[in-house]
Amino acid sequence: MSIVVFGSIAFDDVVTRHGTVLNAYGGSALYFTAAASLFVPVDMVGVVGDDFPPDELDFLKKRGVTVDGVKVVEGGKTFRWACEYENDMNKRKTTRLELNVFKDFNPILSGSRRKAQYMFIGNIDPDLQLGVLEQLESPECIAADTIECYLKDKPDQFREVLKRIDVLFINDSEARLFTGEHTIISAARALLDCGPEYVIIKKGEHGSLLVSKDMFFTAPAYPVMDVVDPTGAGDSFAGGAMGYIARMHSLDWQTLKTAVVYGGVAASFLVEGFSYEKLKKVTLKDVEKRMSDFRSMTSY
Amino acid sequence: MSIVVFGSIAFDDVVTRHGTVLNAYGGSALYFTAAASLFVPVDMVGVVGDDFPPDELDFLKKRGVTVDGVKVVEGGKTFRWACEYENDMNKRKTTRLELNVFKDFNPILSGSRRKAQYMFIGNIDPDLQLGVLEQLESPECIAADTIECYLKDKPDQFREVLKRIDVLFINDSEARLFTGEHTIISAARALLDCGPEYVIIKKGEHGSLLVSKDMFFTAPAYPVMDVVDPTGAGDSFAGGAMGYIARMHSLDWQTLKTAVVYGGVAASFLVEGFSYEKLKKVTLKDVEKRMSDFRSMTSY
Repeated sequence: MSIVVFGSIAFDDVVTRHGTVLNAYGGSALYFTAAASLFVPVDMVGVVGDDFPPDELDFLKKRGVTVDGVKVVEGGKTFRWACEYENDMNKRKTTRLELNVFKDFNPILSGSRRKAQYMFIGNIDPDLQLGVLEQLESPECIAADTIECYLKDKPDQFREVLKRIDVLFINDSEARLFTGEHTIISAARALLDCGPEYVIIKKGEHGSLLVSKDMFFTAPAYPVMDVVDPTGAGDSFAGGAMGYIARMHSLDWQTLKTAVVYGGVAASFLVEGFSYEKLKKVTLKDVEKRMSDFRSMTSY
Repeated sequence: MSIVVFGSIAFDDVVTRHGTVLNAYGGSALYFTAAASLFVPVDMVGVVGDDFPPDELDFLKKRGVTVDGVKVVEGGKTFRWACEYENDMNKRKTTRLELNVFKDFNPILSGSRRKAQYMFIGNIDPDLQLGVLEQLESPECIAADTIECYLKDKPDQFREVLKRIDVLFINDSEARLFTGEHTIISAARALLDCGPEYVIIKKGEHGSLLVSKDMFFTAPAYPVMDVVDPTGAGDSFAGGAMGYIARMHSLDWQTLKTAVVYGGVAASFLVEGFSYEKLKKVTLKDVEKRMSDFRSMTSY
């Protein structure tokens, strides 16, 4: 099955202890797609300005990604984001955020996209997330991600999003922030009570948690010797996980568990380079190799 | 096989969001023994003042622990430690540290203890650790733990300790601090280069890492719904792991991997109560039940 993804496409300025990159390609939709397209065809919905080079998406087209849902605004400027990481790469500070063409974007899904079976909505404004959710007709699986600023500014709208999705991807500090719970597990349980069938908590280099009403699964992260740039790790994690779920065309527990491990492996490639430079060169065979290594590193 | 343990026996004052306990029983040797004694007989070496109630060790005696290596200093005061945890239980501040009888303690091992096959040395002054290490004759396995203040104050002495031990237990921030490495894996590799055959990095609620020259294993933590008091989690982790290793009388890779999981399960009981109240009531059967639950939570 294919996946429709809606999210940001951006220029990122990123400072890590490995150096600085300016105008790097980024955004939740791009990072998600760079991972998910290893597994299934992806149909991207988003918006860019005419400063975004059309050729940049060619590597995705070669992987079977449809990009005609990416609107180009003539004379508009692409979404921009900048951040600086501390030496401890788990900590970062957003130094700039310009919505630009994303500010007035109101995505109208085409007829075929309304019938999407698998949909992923990146970490954008919950009002926009709801706008897209309302257009879907009979999806098998809707997944969404979020980000701290919207949990603080629009908690009620995010609560509405939670009622309408099947899988939530969220990081650990955000899960604690939104629920007020102290442990990750009680935070995950509280989020499940808001609607989703599955909650997946991303813990960066510490791995992830998958929780359903009755079940619980936890996986460490694939060990990376040197993290160059963690930007987009959460999006590529979701891309790997959702890509596998759509490929298996199943939402059963066994599939979800394995999906979470695939997500971690996809993210492990992403963080080894700036932007999605590393993930761009990866094949499904490389992913399978790390899946096999991971199994030997975690079985006892 | 039995284990000889040398470390602190203490009164702890602990403040967590669950409340405050004063004069709780603690110290690395006690926490270690409360876990390790579930697996094998333990022989404790340490020192207390006459303010320490002798009956307190009765539950350990019933589990086959030898306590006649615990010296009682008449008129002396037992080691004291106090700390406050933040709401995020991964963060704490030491508010008081009184060595008391531990200050001038110079442990002389008896003949049978010098022949110990399995020895664990808790997170005490590296000079004391070296003093004990020099007395051992032909141990199968020596393991040690450490703590931040000694890595800062006595790095050279700790480097000497590293040359003489087989297994190092250390937490993630300390591993980074001592080696100057940014990722946990490169920190673990740098520590291996200093001497030990195995390095075990404890990451609290994020699980643990086991590294040898050629091998790598990572395990998440057993999920605990509500952490009451993390004091002693690292010591009981080491106790569970070393207890299993001594019980299996093996230092092969398969044993070490499983030992790390047992360590996590032992620590999961410890943090569910103040001091070692919870671990005191646990049996090996309870541990095995959690081991089995953990397997189903982590296999895919």
